[in-house]
Amino acid sequence: MKPGAWFVLPTAFAQNGDLDLASQSRVVDAAIAWGATGLTALGVMGEAAHLAIDERQAVVETVMSAAGGRLPVLVGCSAQAERLVVGFAEQARLAGASGVMVSAPTLLRNVDLLPGFYERVGAGCQLPVVVQDEPNATGVSIPVSVLARSLRAVGSTTVKLEDPPTPPKISRLLEEMPEALVFGGLGGVSLLAELRRGAGGTMTGFAFPEVMAVIVDAVAAGAFGRAATVFDRFLPLITFEGQPVVGLAIRKELLRRRGVLTTGATRGQLRVLDAATCADLDDVLQRVGLTPGPERLSV
Amino acid sequence: MKPGAWFVLPTAFAQNGDLDLASQSRVVDAAIAWGATGLTALGVMGEAAHLAIDERQAVVETVMSAAGGRLPVLVGCSAQAERLVVGFAEQARLAGASGVMVSAPTLLRNVDLLPGFYERVGAGCQLPVVVQDEPNATGVSIPVSVLARSLRAVGSTTVKLEDPPTPPKISRLLEEMPEALVFGGLGGVSLLAELRRGAGGTMTGFAFPEVMAVIVDAVAAGAFGRAATVFDRFLPLITFEGQPVVGLAIRKELLRRRGVLTTGATRGQLRVLDAATCADLDDVLQRVGLTPGPERLSV
Amino acid sequence: MKPGAWFVLPTAFAQNGDLDLASQSRVVDAAIAWGATGLTALGVMGEAAHLAIDERQAVVETVMSAAGGRLPVLVGCSAQAERLVVGFAEQARLAGASGVMVSAPTLLRNVDLLPGFYERVGAGCQLPVVVQDEPNATGVSIPVSVLARSLRAVGSTTVKLEDPPTPPKISRLLEEMPEALVFGGLGGVSLLAELRRGAGGTMTGFAFPEVMAVIVDAVAAGAFGRAATVFDRFLPLITFEGQPVVGLAIRKELLRRRGVLTTGATRGQLRVLDAATCADLDDVLQRVGLTPGPERLSV
Amino acid sequence: MKPGAWFVLPTAFAQNGDLDLASQSRVVDAAIAWGATGLTALGVMGEAAHLAIDERQAVVETVMSAAGGRLPVLVGCSAQAERLVVGFAEQARLAGASGVMVSAPTLLRNVDLLPGFYERVGAGCQLPVVVQDEPNATGVSIPVSVLARSLRAVGSTTVKLEDPPTPPKISRLLEEMPEALVFGGLGGVSLLAELRRGAGGTMTGFAFPEVMAVIVDAVAAGAFGRAATVFDRFLPLITFEGQPVVGLAIRKELLRRRGVLTTGATRGQLRVLDAATCADLDDVLQRVGLTPGPERLSV
Repeated sequence: MKPGAWFVLPTAFAQNGDLDLASQSRVVDAAIAWGATGLTALGVMGEAAHLAIDERQAVVETVMSAAGGRLPVLVGCSAQAERLVVGFAEQARLAGASGVMVSAPTLLRNVDLLPGFYERVGAGCQLPVVVQDEPNATGVSIPVSVLARSLRAVGSTTVKLEDPPTPPKISRLLEEMPEALVFGGLGGVSLLAELRRGAGGTMTGFAFPEVMAVIVDAVAAGAFGRAATVFDRFLPLITFEGQPVVGLAIRKELLRRRGVLTTGATRGQLRVLDAATCADLDDVLQRVGLTPGPERLSV
Repeated sequence: MKPGAWFVLPTAFAQNGDLDLASQSRVVDAAIAWGATGLTALGVMGEAAHLAIDERQAVVETVMSAAGGRLPVLVGCSAQAERLVVGFAEQARLAGASGVMVSAPTLLRNVDLLPGFYERVGAGCQLPVVVQDEPNATGVSIPVSVLARSLRAVGSTTVKLEDPPTPPKISRLLEEMPEALVFGGLGGVSLLAELRRGAGGTMTGFAFPEVMAVIVDAVAAGAFGRAATVFDRFLPLITFEGQPVVGLAIRKELLRRRGVLTTGATRGQLRVLDAATCADLDDVLQRVGLTPGPERLSV
Repeated sequence: MKPGAWFVLPTAFAQNGDLDLASQSRVVDAAIAWGATGLTALGVMGEAAHLAIDERQAVVETVMSAAGGRLPVLVGCSAQAERLVVGFAEQARLAGASGVMVSAPTLLRNVDLLPGFYERVGAGCQLPVVVQDEPNATGVSIPVSVLARSLRAVGSTTVKLEDPPTPPKISRLLEEMPEALVFGGLGGVSLLAELRRGAGGTMTGFAFPEVMAVIVDAVAAGAFGRAATVFDRFLPLITFEGQPVVGLAIRKELLRRRGVLTTGATRGQLRVLDAATCADLDDVLQRVGLTPGPERLSV
Repeated sequence: MKPGAWFVLPTAFAQNGDLDLASQSRVVDAAIAWGATGLTALGVMGEAAHLAIDERQAVVETVMSAAGGRLPVLVGCSAQAERLVVGFAEQARLAGASGVMVSAPTLLRNVDLLPGFYERVGAGCQLPVVVQDEPNATGVSIPVSVLARSLRAVGSTTVKLEDPPTPPKISRLLEEMPEALVFGGLGGVSLLAELRRGAGGTMTGFAFPEVMAVIVDAVAAGAFGRAATVFDRFLPLITFEGQPVVGLAIRKELLRRRGVLTTGATRGQLRVLDAATCADLDDVLQRVGLTPGPERLSV
């Protein structure tokens, strides 16, 4: 995968909960216009677990079509069985994806089984595999020793590392596997420290991906001070959006306000962004001096 | 749902991991011949989480067709989003199922959200809904207060209760909701005590369902001593098969030896029943005096 | 408890891991000088679980003696059994504490048992009890319905609420129990939104408690804009210190640099703040323009 | 540690919850009379987490004094910090214990930290250390690779392995560390299979330790058939007592009926064995033909 600031696409829903493919296309166009390095579809924040199989397919095809080869697309293919992972991956490959992202099977208790799982995933997938380390979503804490073995087993060096605190885990992983390419996530809440530790970028769906891009690019260019200035300026919004449970609804509301999503609907247990959180959001936006709009921010 | 001893169907796989629908039919025929009260397809032990959508469909149709209306069929429809649950349920209804079984969304942390989830499930499903309380598979411990609220929200009185220790939880639930119909599960390891506490039966995939049926029927007939004699006689096998992680592979191996499954393959991380566990199984069978075969056991 | 910005005291250790009671006194003096509303000793971040009983006693006595009645002191008394809780509470009462703080027993799976636990705690404790809702430390997610019942059972209206996202949970709790006095925690990472939702303050050990005090006071005085300005200015440090696992070592290092702790030693698995995290910290401090020192910050 | 059937001592309480040291002595005498190989005090089932420090000391001294050198005594010394572990271990050593048992710190998320924890424990303890692998009590699943590293780090070969399914984990551990001496636990529910896999015995508090001793001795003598006959005969009681949550209260009620405990009181959330469970117990005892009494069972 190319280092940089990848954008984790939300899945767009209409108010009645149906897929909203027009919005799905728009969000792809917008992410490209806003400067994303690549796109990640059907991740945790893409509500992949809430999609029917034909909906998965529709989202992937819409994204690929909207991307039109302008950016590489990574497709989340996590599932409880490697056979399903491989099936999802093949679907993604046929649609033109550049790679797949696969987390540990949910609630796997014996992490010694992970390298075997990833070995079978690697054997079955014909696309590059990014290992996702996301204990909040999976219930599985992967120690670095097992993470490195899993990467080798799947034949990959790329990991989306979302087990906080991420900065020291990045250091430990790079010590054990210096060739690893690490992406942060988690809404970018630790992006600056992650980059300091050697992360090659981030994959996250923060609603202003241009902010992430500026930070990652600045660090890549050695302009750490500039990266920090931008990071700190937007931190109130980054941490606000980065909250668990409500974060996705906040993000979608922002993308709605930016004009790319038609609604902020999610399929999670919390489908409506309540009025109080909306008011909190208004407050945060005012504080950071942002009026969400379709144009690329000049940061 | 009808009280009694329901059989939780395994999903039959060929050695290469493909569906084995001929075996799937055979296991339905066998369960009926062995005296099951009803059939449950695509439960946790049916490896529902390891099936692609078309495989789900194929299994449901095969089961319905093999059952041919001889027994009611319940279909597991658990998913992270009620929309998916409702979709699975509609698929089940069209295929002729009698009801659906739905557990809590995996890793749901705020159990106050459960009644709302079940209310939406109930509103969307056109079949009776059995609530499954299975913390080992979902990571969600449901207190009795929330379980009763969830049952009322979904408009059901039937629960498959698998949160050990099950006997006191059954008592507490029946105190709060006397009209509840409780089924045990967990391979039947606590069946006798569950029935003593007022359970109306069990839904489990123990490889000798006729044993479960005899126990449930005996208790229903007031012949508790007989029930106990049978339970205790088979307890070494019941607890051996009831082990976590390896239990399903043991069960499938037994059904293979009974001549209804062609292979004992599973899609779990542990796909092969290792030689040592096979030897343990041989030992257990010898101890309880069982030679697995296709005929209904005379217990 | 008095609303405001309570300071959660770290427990001071020498380099060899022994208690450092001179530092313990100094940190109390400092917190008072820096404007804390009250002091909380032996919380999660006071490493209470890592102290021997005589060490607990020494810390409590040192804190009480150093506080000298200038501020109210709350003592963490969490334990697996209410009998231990009550014993700790009596020790705290005899030493002159104003109240105790008690979380759920670790890994309690059936939350319906919580109100009974708190009822017995309340019956045994002769001091006011603050209920601590901290799932990260206890492994117990308390739904609002059970939290309200627990507060009533223990005869208290005060809760330290640390189950993120905290803002909506505060709203839900206040809806169910309008008389509740809610304190945030978690290093203050969501303080502003918590106050917006009606929290009466925070109890946290952020190494610059004067910052927390200014924010809480400003909101209490209706000067929300001022609160926000201060919060946002320090947010890079607040979120950096608020990281899991490494956060306590960062906090102690800061208090060391402020001249009140002699060492930054912790008893956790991560006892040494590694060089890379130290460098990250230097960077954060520079960005927010802070040179840690003993004097009260003019914010 | 000596292979065989160690008895995990309950901690005896009076009806009011105070320690009952007379019963504590009696249960030691009884366990010796009933044929235990050794004694384990203050394990999970000894309610160590529910004891004040002076109570710990009183229990250890009472046990040592009652044992009078007739049997080796192992003392549970688990705690969140190795410093506490070492303190408990020194207390145990001074009282004359033969070894200590130490589990992982509760809720430790990064298992890569375990070998370091055990290394410090080993460096500080002057007694042999048994590593306890008990995920139900600690919330920590230890993969075999880390378990072996932890044993080497602490300088021990002895493990009490209670992560079900235990039989395959025993095999995997012995493959990686052939010199390991493995004890089962978990109330003996998988004892027979554990011994088949190479376990050297069990450490459990099943209320009829003579049954465990006969089984372990029979296997050691090559009389596997005899072991199986005894195991199967008592299995209804073993599995009934082996239930989570209620198991300890059942065990204590049995020891009360055997005349060694004065009451069946526990300090857990479930302190009273409810009437229905008592009735279940009566039924089980009748089924296995047992009238609990002080005399050693002739099995």
